[in-house]
Amino acid sequence: MNKKILMTPGPTMVPEEVLEINGRQPMHHRTQEFYELFSGLNLNLKKIFKTKMEVMTLTASGTGAMEASVANLFSKGDKVLFATIGHFGERFYDIAKIYGLDAELLDFGWGNAVDLNVLEDKLKDGDYKALFITQNETSTGVTNDIKAAAETAGKYSIPVIVDAVSSLGGIPLEMDKWGVDVVITCSQKCFMSPPGLSFISLSERAWGMAEKSTLPKYYFDLKKARKGVMKEKPDTPYTPAVSTIMAAKRATDMLLSLGLDNVYKRQEDFGKKVRDYIKDIGLQLFPEECIASNLISAIKVPEDISASDIINYILEKHNILITGGQGRLKGKIIRIGHMGYVTEEMLEKTLNALKEAVLKLKK
Amino acid sequence: MNKKILMTPGPTMVPEEVLEINGRQPMHHRTQEFYELFSGLNLNLKKIFKTKMEVMTLTASGTGAMEASVANLFSKGDKVLFATIGHFGERFYDIAKIYGLDAELLDFGWGNAVDLNVLEDKLKDGDYKALFITQNETSTGVTNDIKAAAETAGKYSIPVIVDAVSSLGGIPLEMDKWGVDVVITCSQKCFMSPPGLSFISLSERAWGMAEKSTLPKYYFDLKKARKGVMKEKPDTPYTPAVSTIMAAKRATDMLLSLGLDNVYKRQEDFGKKVRDYIKDIGLQLFPEECIASNLISAIKVPEDISASDIINYILEKHNILITGGQGRLKGKIIRIGHMGYVTEEMLEKTLNALKEAVLKLKK
Repeated sequence: MNKKILMTPGPTMVPEEVLEINGRQPMHHRTQEFYELFSGLNLNLKKIFKTKMEVMTLTASGTGAMEASVANLFSKGDKVLFATIGHFGERFYDIAKIYGLDAELLDFGWGNAVDLNVLEDKLKDGDYKALFITQNETSTGVTNDIKAAAETAGKYSIPVIVDAVSSLGGIPLEMDKWGVDVVITCSQKCFMSPPGLSFISLSERAWGMAEKSTLPKYYFDLKKARKGVMKEKPDTPYTPAVSTIMAAKRATDMLLSLGLDNVYKRQEDFGKKVRDYIKDIGLQLFPEECIASNLISAIKVPEDISASDIINYILEKHNILITGGQGRLKGKIIRIGHMGYVTEEMLEKTLNALKEAVLKLKK
Repeated sequence: MNKKILMTPGPTMVPEEVLEINGRQPMHHRTQEFYELFSGLNLNLKKIFKTKMEVMTLTASGTGAMEASVANLFSKGDKVLFATIGHFGERFYDIAKIYGLDAELLDFGWGNAVDLNVLEDKLKDGDYKALFITQNETSTGVTNDIKAAAETAGKYSIPVIVDAVSSLGGIPLEMDKWGVDVVITCSQKCFMSPPGLSFISLSERAWGMAEKSTLPKYYFDLKKARKGVMKEKPDTPYTPAVSTIMAAKRATDMLLSLGLDNVYKRQEDFGKKVRDYIKDIGLQLFPEECIASNLISAIKVPEDISASDIINYILEKHNILITGGQGRLKGKIIRIGHMGYVTEEMLEKTLNALKEAVLKLKK
């Protein structure tokens, strides 16, 4: 088997049995078989989101669901805070600015995690309508402590909106228990499915905010999507990506039958394994180890080697795709994704390939 | 082979070879193989749209691209005209209202086509910034004459936005030659692909309008999407539905190798065949024959039979899915889709099943 292995921030590898379903004739979305499928998916989603609330499925990538959270909960001029630690946090902030929110950026710097004391100082004085925060920042390989952040925001009754695009189903996130108001994720990361779907859930408090929002939305109107989900024969307001829904149902079945706690544990092991390995071969992690992601590892590029040479070497010699840095980190880091459908064997192959690349390319 | 046959307004049947590709491991969207795939798809799309302009691919269903046309070209209060003949025309109007456009509805009634004289009277006095019109209204089985409508609007220099969601690639539409400013379509109708993608192209004039638009958009920002398409290594601003793009590339290859003129001719034959057949068995077409769609046939339900009984009979006895009426036509019509990947055999089976159902169910 010399198929390309994706060790990227997503799309990630899709298991053969999920691919097989994706290759079936799509169902019609106004049929009994679809209602049953979608009911099943919705139930799986609630279990993964750890919520009693409805989870809405949007035919759009994660960015679409991020936009949906802005357009559905807020109005022009609403004051909100973005605690950012990298590219995707900044994207979320950009969306809010475009919708005319009074958005404030609390930038902790690329490579850092959110500092809870700094955050608390801001929150207590700010009168914000919401806090936006990224759980796992794939651009820097850093994970924020969402439980603690939600607790902090909770002290001041500030709703919390979490971009869990690359993290949900890979590391713990308990929407209801932690008091998170909006959770956003997508199909092509820890969900082991092809790209094309995003998932979003709102707390009762968030639905209350949605009642007051005056921003325009149609395709991303979450009230309409919720209505579809709540039907006895649940459906979506517009034709969804049926094939991807079929695939995501199967993939979430797999995730749940593995057991979320086992998945979290495996991701912890993978994260530690990568960090130990790169130390052994003389490489350095980009962020501090205590905030490093168990889903994606960002590694500093040694001074005498170029990032693209490492990436190309691993791709050409081993048919494994890892990625480089985005934006200001371009050329400075390489990133190995190890979320979703990654086996021990894939991970070992990747690490061995990295070691080989570094040895060969060193001047 | 007793697989379910979809004779619906979409999702329509997907050919086996397209399904096979949809079942492959998704590519990563920032790789050479994706750039080549996407270049190829973009070239195919230009040929099908019959335009020299870029065609943008959105990960969203057709409604998303409809919203994109509104959010990208207009500003609050812009006066626009919607010539509607059914459900999907009204949906387009609803989108414009939500974005605060000064949208006027020129409703020709469900079952009718746009009357060009009435349209011209409106256009000449109205000072509209655009005319919105549906090419093929699947809710009623009626096709509008877009060439003539564009000519009429052209006399008054009014830009024309065409919802060709269910028609492009099935009946003629020449974007550049006819002077159409925006064309919108999707993957799951005449494009013979799974649902999840929509496609949109803008004329130079429409891009000029986009420069002035002040409505908020992020995920559906067409300027960003265009920038991606125009790159030497073309891509999309956000992770697209890669598997569906892989499938759509193959499906559009098939469409173009069949030859669009041959496809149009086959659709004409199919339309006529259905209309002749239903007359023979004593049923009546819902619209006048001269405006009837060659892509989907809406048939009046005989007074002594229920629509759902016919639909269920055909589904249960023959495993063929046809659909009923939407909204105000619920229970009054049945609809047979014959667009996209439909063979002579499928069509004949469906017509025979319909005849059988009507005979059996007659009281």
